Amino acid sequence: MAARAISRYPVPELKDLPEDIRSRILAVQEKSGFVPNVFLALAHRPAEWRAFFAYHDALMERDVGGEVTLTKAEREMIVVATSGANHCQYCVVAHGAILRIRAKDPRIADQLAVNYRKADITPRQRAMLDYAMKVALEASRIEEPDLAGLRAHGFSEDDIWDIGAIAAFFALSNRLANMTSMRPNDEFYLMGRVPKGELSR
Amino acid sequence: MAARAISRYPVPELKDLPEDIRSRILAVQEKSGFVPNVFLALAHRPAEWRAFFAYHDALMERDVGGEVTLTKAEREMIVVATSGANHCQYCVVAHGAILRIRAKDPRIADQLAVNYRKADITPRQRAMLDYAMKVALEASRIEEPDLAGLRAHGFSEDDIWDIGAIAAFFALSNRLANMTSMRPNDEFYLMGRVPKGELSR
Amino acid sequence: MAARAISRYPVPELKDLPEDIRSRILAVQEKSGFVPNVFLALAHRPAEWRAFFAYHDALMERDVGGEVTLTKAEREMIVVATSGANHCQYCVVAHGAILRIRAKDPRIADQLAVNYRKADITPRQRAMLDYAMKVALEASRIEEPDLAGLRAHGFSEDDIWDIGAIAAFFALSNRLANMTSMRPNDEFYLMGRVPKGELSR
Amino acid sequence: MAARAISRYPVPELKDLPEDIRSRILAVQEKSGFVPNVFLALAHRPAEWRAFFAYHDALMERDVGGEVTLTKAEREMIVVATSGANHCQYCVVAHGAILRIRAKDPRIADQLAVNYRKADITPRQRAMLDYAMKVALEASRIEEPDLAGLRAHGFSEDDIWDIGAIAAFFALSNRLANMTSMRPNDEFYLMGRVPKGELSR
Amino acid sequence: MAARAISRYPVPELKDLPEDIRSRILAVQEKSGFVPNVFLALAHRPAEWRAFFAYHDALMERDVGGEVTLTKAEREMIVVATSGANHCQYCVVAHGAILRIRAKDPRIADQLAVNYRKADITPRQRAMLDYAMKVALEASRIEEPDLAGLRAHGFSEDDIWDIGAIAAFFALSNRLANMTSMRPNDEFYLMGRVPKGELSR
Amino acid sequence: MAARAISRYPVPELKDLPEDIRSRILAVQEKSGFVPNVFLALAHRPAEWRAFFAYHDALMERDVGGEVTLTKAEREMIVVATSGANHCQYCVVAHGAILRIRAKDPRIADQLAVNYRKADITPRQRAMLDYAMKVALEASRIEEPDLAGLRAHGFSEDDIWDIGAIAAFFALSNRLANMTSMRPNDEFYLMGRVPKGELSR
Repeated sequence: MAARAISRYPVPELKDLPEDIRSRILAVQEKSGFVPNVFLALAHRPAEWRAFFAYHDALMERDVGGEVTLTKAEREMIVVATSGANHCQYCVVAHGAILRIRAKDPRIADQLAVNYRKADITPRQRAMLDYAMKVALEASRIEEPDLAGLRAHGFSEDDIWDIGAIAAFFALSNRLANMTSMRPNDEFYLMGRVPKGELSR
Repeated sequence: MAARAISRYPVPELKDLPEDIRSRILAVQEKSGFVPNVFLALAHRPAEWRAFFAYHDALMERDVGGEVTLTKAEREMIVVATSGANHCQYCVVAHGAILRIRAKDPRIADQLAVNYRKADITPRQRAMLDYAMKVALEASRIEEPDLAGLRAHGFSEDDIWDIGAIAAFFALSNRLANMTSMRPNDEFYLMGRVPKGELSR
Repeated sequence: MAARAISRYPVPELKDLPEDIRSRILAVQEKSGFVPNVFLALAHRPAEWRAFFAYHDALMERDVGGEVTLTKAEREMIVVATSGANHCQYCVVAHGAILRIRAKDPRIADQLAVNYRKADITPRQRAMLDYAMKVALEASRIEEPDLAGLRAHGFSEDDIWDIGAIAAFFALSNRLANMTSMRPNDEFYLMGRVPKGELSR
Repeated sequence: MAARAISRYPVPELKDLPEDIRSRILAVQEKSGFVPNVFLALAHRPAEWRAFFAYHDALMERDVGGEVTLTKAEREMIVVATSGANHCQYCVVAHGAILRIRAKDPRIADQLAVNYRKADITPRQRAMLDYAMKVALEASRIEEPDLAGLRAHGFSEDDIWDIGAIAAFFALSNRLANMTSMRPNDEFYLMGRVPKGELSR
Repeated sequence: MAARAISRYPVPELKDLPEDIRSRILAVQEKSGFVPNVFLALAHRPAEWRAFFAYHDALMERDVGGEVTLTKAEREMIVVATSGANHCQYCVVAHGAILRIRAKDPRIADQLAVNYRKADITPRQRAMLDYAMKVALEASRIEEPDLAGLRAHGFSEDDIWDIGAIAAFFALSNRLANMTSMRPNDEFYLMGRVPKGELSR
Repeated sequence: MAARAISRYPVPELKDLPEDIRSRILAVQEKSGFVPNVFLALAHRPAEWRAFFAYHDALMERDVGGEVTLTKAEREMIVVATSGANHCQYCVVAHGAILRIRAKDPRIADQLAVNYRKADITPRQRAMLDYAMKVALEASRIEEPDLAGLRAHGFSEDDIWDIGAIAAFFALSNRLANMTSMRPNDEFYLMGRVPKGELSR
C-alpha cells in the first residue's frame, strides 16, 4: 500500500520552510525520533503555524508551581477526553500517546477517549473533565456554579482558566485536524504502552 | 492500588457456576490466557449468560462461504465503531483487541473507535459501517435505500442481516456494560499491537 | 389490498422450521389465537431465534417473590416506554397489548408510548422508567446515584438489574424490528382495550 | 381512585362560561357524547379560547374541492404524527381517535404516533408527513426544494400552506397541552377501534 | 436590486382585503409609519389572520394589574429569546425592535437573541426565560417543579400561564415565518436603537 | 447601575501590560475610538494574547488577490454565522458591527446571526456558510464532497482553507468568550447601522 497523505492540503518539504519553523521541527524530530504530522500539515501557512504552536505551548507546557496546580498529564487528559467527544482521530491518537507517557499509565488514554465517566481518575480530575467537556460541547451554558465546583476541588483561578482554555484551544485544533483529514503518525499508536526496554526491537 | 471491581453487580466465583458455564469459561481462559470480564460479570444470571453468548457466537463466529462474505475482522469492525459511538469502554477495549488480531492491523481499532469516516478501510467497509451506525443510532429511519446501497457493494442478504444484527446485538451489549460499569481486563489494551515475539517478556 | 409483508427478510413456513422452534410457535398460537410476527420474522435464523427468546423469557417471565418485586406488568411498562422512545412500531403495538392485559388497564400503554412523564403511574414506577429510559437512550451516563434512586424506592439489586437489562434487551429488539420493518399483527391493536365479552363478535 | 385533574390550571364550570363558548361546548357534547377536555382546559381564558378554536377550525375543517385536495383524514394524520414527535399525550390520544374515524382505519393512528415511516400510507402521504415533520421539528431549515417535492405529488399551493400551517398550529397546541398537563378523556382511547354496533354495551 | 418578496406565498393587495382586516392594517400603518410584513403575509387567509392576531393581542397586550405582573417588555423578551432559539429571522428582528422600545433599552434584544443566559436581566426574568425556553424546546418535560420555581420569584398563576402561552404561541408564529420565508421590514432593524431626535433625518 | 464586569477573570490595567500589547491596544483605540473588550479580557495572559491576535490577523486581514478571492466582509460573515450557532454574544455583537461596516450593509449581520439560510447572500456565499457551519458544528463529518462543492463555486484551495480555518478559530474564540462571560462594548451595537453623519451627536 502506498503511503497515505497526511493532509488534504499541500504539505511543504522541510527545506522549503522558514528557518524558525524548520528549526523547531528539527528539534522535535531530534527529541521524539519523528516529526508529528501536525507540524507538517499546518506548515504551508507559516503565520498560522507560529500562532498555533505558540498558543499550544502557552497552555500545555506550564509547570506546576504557585497558582498552577494542574499537571502536564492532566492537561493531556483534557485534550484526549474533549478530542474523543469531537471525534478527532489525530488528536486522540497523538495526545493519547503523550498522555500515556506523562501519566505513566498505559491505559488511561483509551479509557478517556471512549468515556471519561468510566476512567480511572480522581474525583478532582472528574470535576476538571466535567468542566472541560462543557466548554468543548456547550460553552454557552457555562455559568458561575460551574466554576464554584472547580474551586471546591482546590483548583486556582489560573487552573480554571487553563482547563477551559485548553478545551477551547482543542476545539480549534480538532476542527483543523478534521477539515484537513490529518493523519496520525504510525509511531503514536504504540508509544507509552510498553515500558522502555520491553520491546525487543 | 487495590483491585478495582469488574462490575457494580455481584461476580460469582468460578467454582460456584453451573458446569456448562464454568467449562466454557475455562476453555476461553485456556485459549486466551485470561478470562475476559464479560464472562464473569454476566455469570450471576445463568439463563441470560447462556442466551447472551449463544447470540454472540451466532453472529460473530460465522465463517466466510456461500452467501456469507462478511469476514470475522469486519464483524469486529462493526462492534468497535458502534461501541465507540455508544461510549462503551469495555466493548471498545476488548473488541478493539480482537479486531487488531483478526485484521492483523495494530491501528485500525483506535481509528474506528474515534471516527470511522477517517479510518483506513475500503469503500465497501465504509458502506457497511454507515449502515451499522444507522442501526445503532437511528434504526427507526432505516428504509429500503439503505439496503440497496449495501447490495451495490456486493453484500448478500445474509450479510446485510448480519451487519444490522451485530449492530443491534451490541446495542444490548454496550448498555449492559455501561449499566454494570464493566471493567476491561488490563490484558486487552496491548493485545494485537505488537507482533508476537517482539515483547521481551 | 394484498397482505403486506411482515418483514423485509425471508419468512420461512412453519413446516420448514426446526422442531423445537415449531413447537414453541404452535404453543403460542394455541394460547394467543395467532402467531405474533416476531416469532416468524426471526425464524430464518434458528440459532439467533433460540437465543432471542431464551433471553426474552429470562427477563420478562420472572414471577414476583424473594428479591424480585418487579411485576410482569411493570416489565412490560419498561418495554412500551423505551420502545416508544426508539420509535419501534412492532414493540409498542405488540407489547402495548400485553401490557394492557397484564396491567388490566386499557389506557396505560398509549400513555407510556407517547410520554411516560404524563402517565398514570406511581412514583416508584416513575423512578423505574427514568432509569430504564436512561439505559435506553444514554447508558454511558449511568452512575451510582442512578442506582441509589431506585433503592430508595424499594427496588432490590435484582430488580435494578432487571430494569436495566430489559431496557438493554429491547435496545436490541427495537433495532431488529426497525431493520426488518417488522409488521405488528392486526390482532394486537385491540387486545386488552375491551373487557372480554363486550365485543359482540 | 379519585378523578384525576384534567389540567394544572383552573377549569371553570360550564355555567360560568360566556354564552358563545358554552353553546359551542354544548354542541360538541351533543354530537360526541362528551366534552373533550381541551374545550374546558382553555376556557378560563375566553379570548384565547376563541382564537384557538377559530384557528383550529379554519385549518382542520376544510372540505376537499377546488385547490384543496387535502382530506380531513390527512389533516388528522399530520396532527397525530407531529404530536407523537412532540410527545403530546392529549393530542395523540384525542386526534388519534378522530383520525381512526375519519380514515375509517382502526390502526393508522397507532402506527403514525410511533413511526410515520413505517405506517400504511401512500407515497403522497409520506411526502406530506416528511414536510409536516420538518415544519414541526426544524422549520428554520425549510427551503424551496421542500415545497417542490410536495408539488411533484400533486399538492396545490393551498394544500402546502395547510400542511405546514397544521404542523405549526399543533406546535402551539402540543405545548399548551404539555404545559397544562392536559388529560385526554377516557372516551378517546377506544373510539374508532371497533366498528359501531360491535360493542355489546 | 429589485424588492425581495416578503413571503413565498401570495400577498394580497390592501384594497382586496376584507374590511376588518384592512382597517386594522391601516391603523397599524398610521401608528407605526409602515405595515409590518406579517400583517400582509398572512392576509390571503382571512380566518387564520383573524385568529392569529386575536390570539397575539390576548397574550401580548395585557396591562400589569391585579394578578398580572408580567410587563409588556417582559412579554417581548420571551418572544425574542424563544424566536432566537427557533432561528426565526422575522420574529427576532421585528419583536427585537418592539422590545427595545418597550424596555427602553437599545441592547437587550441583541443579547437575548444570541444567549439569554448572558443578557442584562434580573434573576426573576432569568427564571421566566428558563421556563419559556423549556416550553419552546422541550415542553414534554415540563413538570410541577418548573412552576414552583416561578412562584418562588413572585409570578402569579396568571403570569405563569402567560409565560408558557407566549412561548407556545410563538412556536406557531416562528414556524409560519420560517415556512413562508417571511421577510422583516427594513424599518425594524434600527427601531429603538437611537433615541428619538438623534437621527438627523 | 454600576458598570458591569467585562470578564469573569482579572482585567489588567493598560499601564501594567507589556509594551507590545499596550501599543497594539492603543493603536486599536486610536482607530476605533474605544478598546474592544476582547483585547482587555485576554490580556492577563500575554503569551496567549499574542498568539490569539496573531492567529486572528492571519485569517481575517488577508486582502483579495492571487489565489485569495474571499473578501474581508465574507470572512466576517463566517464569524457572525458560526458565532450565532455557538450562542456567543460577544462575537455576534462585535463582529456583527465589523461586518456591517465591511459589507456596507446595516442588516446582514442580524440576518446571519439568526438564520443564515434566510439571509440576503449570494449562492456562493451560501455554499461558503454551509461549509463553515459544518466545520463549526460537525467537523468530524467533513469529507471530500464538501470541498468539491466549494470548488464548483470558484473558491480556490486557499479560500477553502480560510473558510474552514476561520470557523475553527472562532470555535476557540466563542468558547473563550463564553467561559469568561465576555461583555460586548456598548459601542458595537449601533456601529454600521446608521450612515456616518446621520446621527446628530
